[in-house]
Amino acid sequence: MVDNSLSPHGGNMVERILEPAKARRRILGLRKALPVRSQIATECVSIAYGFFSPLEGFMLRAEVDSVVKDMRLTSGYVWSIPIVFDISDEEIKQLDLKVGDTLLLTYQSQPLATLEVEEIYSYDKAFMAQKVFGTADAKHPGVKKTYACKDRFLGGKITLLNPPRINPPFDRFWHSPRELRAIFAQKGWKRVVAHQTRNVPHAGHEWLMKGAWFAASADAVLVNAVIGEKRAGDYIDEAIILAHDILRKAGYFQEGVHMTSILLWDMRYAGPREAVFHALVRKNLGCTHHMFGRDHAGVGTYYETYAAHRIFEELPALGIAPVKTLEWSYCPVCGGIAYEELCGHRAQEQKFSGSLIRGILEDGVKPPRLIFRPEVFDVVMECAEKFGSGSPFVTENYLQKRNPVMSLLPLGSHGERL
Amino acid sequence: MVDNSLSPHGGNMVERILEPAKARRRILGLRKALPVRSQIATECVSIAYGFFSPLEGFMLRAEVDSVVKDMRLTSGYVWSIPIVFDISDEEIKQLDLKVGDTLLLTYQSQPLATLEVEEIYSYDKAFMAQKVFGTADAKHPGVKKTYACKDRFLGGKITLLNPPRINPPFDRFWHSPRELRAIFAQKGWKRVVAHQTRNVPHAGHEWLMKGAWFAASADAVLVNAVIGEKRAGDYIDEAIILAHDILRKAGYFQEGVHMTSILLWDMRYAGPREAVFHALVRKNLGCTHHMFGRDHAGVGTYYETYAAHRIFEELPALGIAPVKTLEWSYCPVCGGIAYEELCGHRAQEQKFSGSLIRGILEDGVKPPRLIFRPEVFDVVMECAEKFGSGSPFVTENYLQKRNPVMSLLPLGSHGERL
Repeated sequence: MVDNSLSPHGGNMVERILEPAKARRRILGLRKALPVRSQIATECVSIAYGFFSPLEGFMLRAEVDSVVKDMRLTSGYVWSIPIVFDISDEEIKQLDLKVGDTLLLTYQSQPLATLEVEEIYSYDKAFMAQKVFGTADAKHPGVKKTYACKDRFLGGKITLLNPPRINPPFDRFWHSPRELRAIFAQKGWKRVVAHQTRNVPHAGHEWLMKGAWFAASADAVLVNAVIGEKRAGDYIDEAIILAHDILRKAGYFQEGVHMTSILLWDMRYAGPREAVFHALVRKNLGCTHHMFGRDHAGVGTYYETYAAHRIFEELPALGIAPVKTLEWSYCPVCGGIAYEELCGHRAQEQKFSGSLIRGILEDGVKPPRLIFRPEVFDVVMECAEKFGSGSPFVTENYLQKRNPVMSLLPLGSHGERL
Repeated sequence: MVDNSLSPHGGNMVERILEPAKARRRILGLRKALPVRSQIATECVSIAYGFFSPLEGFMLRAEVDSVVKDMRLTSGYVWSIPIVFDISDEEIKQLDLKVGDTLLLTYQSQPLATLEVEEIYSYDKAFMAQKVFGTADAKHPGVKKTYACKDRFLGGKITLLNPPRINPPFDRFWHSPRELRAIFAQKGWKRVVAHQTRNVPHAGHEWLMKGAWFAASADAVLVNAVIGEKRAGDYIDEAIILAHDILRKAGYFQEGVHMTSILLWDMRYAGPREAVFHALVRKNLGCTHHMFGRDHAGVGTYYETYAAHRIFEELPALGIAPVKTLEWSYCPVCGGIAYEELCGHRAQEQKFSGSLIRGILEDGVKPPRLIFRPEVFDVVMECAEKFGSGSPFVTENYLQKRNPVMSLLPLGSHGERL
């Protein structure tokens, strides 16, 4: 039996980052190099900094099989989402890739990391999708992403050679687990409740966080926005993070009880499985609690509204306590934001539908402050102009023109974060 | 070492109530009778129904001494307020009262209870006051009450002969600990957070309860209003209980998360010591948590604002967890009620001073619903007319004309609560 309550997950913070001088020497000896796409690049970074502790690299076949079937690593620790490195037979052939090789991964035409190839394997993607997502429907974006994987996988440890530069406006919100833990310690925060978000916050979200802060008897809320691959109609990443940040700057949270941060991650929309993943990552960040509301990390109608509440009941204590929240809505009788389980004016309550908030933002008319904070509205509108070609929502235009969240510079050309 | 976490306190629910037939026979044999004042009568009732478990009667000298000095019963269980039966030398002489006697206590010219006289003793009232209230200042109402005690004390067990009738509008809010525990069980409430009150609730009180409900991860809030001796300027008891009750009926709380009840008790204003007493009594009622805000059970400037928060840190786990709350105020920037530790608009916040709310009620003009619920306002005004001669505050007129909260009927003349 392993102790899933250890924090970081597994008990040790994984940190696999080579010093610049060593990285430069290391590269000289490498003959096989492979460019990777954005998802793999950010996962290399996240593995190397310990966001995914205890993972030290991309999963071996047995690891994937254990995670897929039993939601456990082969070591016995809970893990819910396969972290895999896909590769084509053609690439393997071109590189003459063999077990035992050290592969140089490149990104944006720069060296990124090494992958020590421990295994080259295949895995049934339909089976993986069915187990992880509860469906093999290719319309599910996570299933689609799984099917889009190349046909072979590499398993092995990652070592980061070239820590990325995180670009504005995201730079000040990205912290490694070690950094974030140091910030918490410096602020004297012992109990921190994580808030997963891909939204700009309306007053309902604000109260979701406030309610969870009470429920966790927390010192603070850590907003941890998932920044990564976007779908058309999503909020643009810049608006998400800056809108959450203004909520504190405008005083809806005190400085001492709230912090805004980001996680580089391409959403899988795996619903309850992704909720478990979110919990483990935020535990690695130093959080003690994690709030889970309706439709957490879900998409369409694949998951029950509160599937993410129930999955934790089947798992051992994870060292990060789920705070299970229902909905906050605007109640005209109460004259403010009211909680589903407390307020008796259910017939009068006005739920914050996506289309309501979307309509507010598309109209561009400042909404009532009880529903949407004017300072948040202003920031979202500014972001729309500055980053979104006039819209706070993701468009083709935004996807083509957006500044990358992270950039690799030539090795040794900038002060690496170490 | 005793286990202070047992619930009821001490592990057993005290119930010392004689069946009507036995009570009638019991009275026949008693030759010594003494009329008691309202405070003693309600304490007899509370002891007999187990509100004060593990107390079975009025304290012996060693018990008082242990409580006064160490905040412990001689058995080792935590207890903070002396529960004493005072008597004059003259009364003792007239009754020829001796240790071993069974004294019939009468109230409203009816038999009430028996007191088995185990000890007749004296105790230094100034010392008792200094220890319990932290002051010997006779201007402190609890000290004054202590000094007003007659010079001797009787210690011994109480048996209730004549369960009182609780008069409207209080009748439906009075429940014995056994009854209340059965109600909780029937409602499926496992975690109940108690709210001590002597106020009509404004929106700040409402959120105090809502915040504590979250903080305790509670199933429900039990409002337990202290009904008893009043001071001029206090809210009238009828307004307190009916205003809290309308808060749920008007939907500011759902039926399933809120209940209104009363405790018959003459406030001692002992600040932190009274906070501990409140916790133990509410534990006996079946509550698992108790909220404590600013100036809990205090008066004047005798206690620090959050003395009631700190006293629990010096005590073992009491089987009822204190939920320590700061202030909720009206924040015009947030546009609603905001919590001291969360809201950053401290300069703009409008605290709910007693005089603000008092002014609202004295003006008789319906205040903004964000500050004071209109339904609560209406109930308070109705109570002012019906019970308070036009004022919701205690006046001499109210004190002289008020209907007693409890009445004794001739033995066997009504269906006793058994």
